[in-house]
Amino acid sequence: MTVTEPTVLALSGGVGGAKLALGLADVLPRGHLHVLVNTADDFSHLGLHISPDIDTLLYTLSGRANAAQGWGLEGETWNAMEALQGLDGDTWFRLGDKDLATHLWRTGRLAQGASLSQVTDSLRTQLGISSHIYPMCDEPVRTTVHCEGRDLPFQHYFVKEQCAPAITGFSFEGILDARPNDTVLQMVRSGAFSAIVVCPSNPFVSIDPILQIPGLWAALSDSPAELVLVSPIVAGMALKGPAAKMMAELGTPVTALGVAEYYCKRYKGLLDYFVIDESDATLVPEIAALGVKVTVTNTVMKSREDKQRLARFTLQVVGV
Amino acid sequence: MTVTEPTVLALSGGVGGAKLALGLADVLPRGHLHVLVNTADDFSHLGLHISPDIDTLLYTLSGRANAAQGWGLEGETWNAMEALQGLDGDTWFRLGDKDLATHLWRTGRLAQGASLSQVTDSLRTQLGISSHIYPMCDEPVRTTVHCEGRDLPFQHYFVKEQCAPAITGFSFEGILDARPNDTVLQMVRSGAFSAIVVCPSNPFVSIDPILQIPGLWAALSDSPAELVLVSPIVAGMALKGPAAKMMAELGTPVTALGVAEYYCKRYKGLLDYFVIDESDATLVPEIAALGVKVTVTNTVMKSREDKQRLARFTLQVVGV
Repeated sequence: MTVTEPTVLALSGGVGGAKLALGLADVLPRGHLHVLVNTADDFSHLGLHISPDIDTLLYTLSGRANAAQGWGLEGETWNAMEALQGLDGDTWFRLGDKDLATHLWRTGRLAQGASLSQVTDSLRTQLGISSHIYPMCDEPVRTTVHCEGRDLPFQHYFVKEQCAPAITGFSFEGILDARPNDTVLQMVRSGAFSAIVVCPSNPFVSIDPILQIPGLWAALSDSPAELVLVSPIVAGMALKGPAAKMMAELGTPVTALGVAEYYCKRYKGLLDYFVIDESDATLVPEIAALGVKVTVTNTVMKSREDKQRLARFTLQVVGV
Repeated sequence: MTVTEPTVLALSGGVGGAKLALGLADVLPRGHLHVLVNTADDFSHLGLHISPDIDTLLYTLSGRANAAQGWGLEGETWNAMEALQGLDGDTWFRLGDKDLATHLWRTGRLAQGASLSQVTDSLRTQLGISSHIYPMCDEPVRTTVHCEGRDLPFQHYFVKEQCAPAITGFSFEGILDARPNDTVLQMVRSGAFSAIVVCPSNPFVSIDPILQIPGLWAALSDSPAELVLVSPIVAGMALKGPAAKMMAELGTPVTALGVAEYYCKRYKGLLDYFVIDESDATLVPEIAALGVKVTVTNTVMKSREDKQRLARFTLQVVGV
């Protein structure tokens, strides 16, 4: 079944999720992709409000992302960081000169009383992005990574310590006071979405924070739109980031089956469809036994065409 | 009378004052200049704590100032500002990429609980400056410029509106809750200073805020150290900035005599010596009639040598 003007909601973390979001933006009608983005990685640094996952979406969907580097902006310069280094300042979180403009603009607008949703919408408009980008909520939610013997704020774990510490769990400070982005929640409730795509993002630190905002999971479950998850684990490795390492440390099998089990146990009835890589085809029977409709394709996205192809495949799976 | 190891306190605003401070730093023994700097121009912008006058001192005394431009850093780049312009952001206050590092560093340290004095001392040390630089106080004091029909925060008046509005007066929000920099206050009280130099800075928005911090003027008046003021007005014009325009709008004669009268009326007994430009030599009798010892020299500082010469002359006037 093909809907004439499909409207799709994607849940995304940073780099891995943004790849599929870019594919979806390319293959859907202009303005029909709505991306709800994790903000539990956000942090306050040197006075600036930094939203790494939102910025990755902004830079990727506007064609400004530095593809080779995997983060930040194309053609970036580092004069502020160099000067900061000269002051013996905190330079573990690399802020490019152009990237700084985004943080300064956001921080200035937030200080004037704008919400993160308003700021994000203005930024995506300024950058000429037709897809809609929403923070998962406007309230501050912050991931704490529980490591052996100590707790680390997410960016300290992720960037400063390069994901080296072994983890024992996560908590999302402030999540009980958060409310899902209102535009997205209303659209979910009114049946505006043809499908919901969970991008191949980290289940623990990208998708969990989104789904655990009170009320969102219930709304998604009640929605007639079918939900499809693209596996972030391919052949026992994460497409991007520390997902595989985290699964291993938490005692979860580092496979697409492990991912499916994790979601099915945690969010009963949420998963309708699951797209896994062809290299994991042997896992199909066990995943299907969980009651999930599983389909197999090449899920590795290198080129723009890879992204569009996987986006098209994923949408077809849910009949869009 | 020459003191073997003279120790001098200078009161300074931004660019005009920093010129003489540089001369003083050059001619005094290393580490024997202490500069107490106006912070009523400080403001919060795009999330950053910006201290324009302190930064002018830091950049000037470390040899990093852009002399041609009159503000900011030598060899500055503007990539963040360009990107911010692309976002239709606030770019009326020009923040260079390297300059941003100073603001980020300061803002980060303040957020961690450091005082502005501590932050300033760390910055001057990092930049290899042997002279001491102090904010006038650690508490926030903010100049409001009263213009005809409206009130403007200082930087809006000064940078955004380029000093165009006609002024009717000033107020310094927060000044009654401010305490003078403690190190300077203790040094004044213990007689550590051989002399006090009031740099050729704007009387209304640079020197007034410093002198009006409760307790400072009284301590300076009680101090045995003699105080010398270098006129910011030469031949009816300000050496730098809007001082002349402000005097005219406030109905004060725009002359060195007008400056002397202003200080003598406002701070009775504060002025011991007054250094004016040779072009204003005819004003000597009238200034002397105010009870101020007035001396004449070339006060225009273009070259490094000009600054050193005026510094030497000013110190000789007070017997240092």
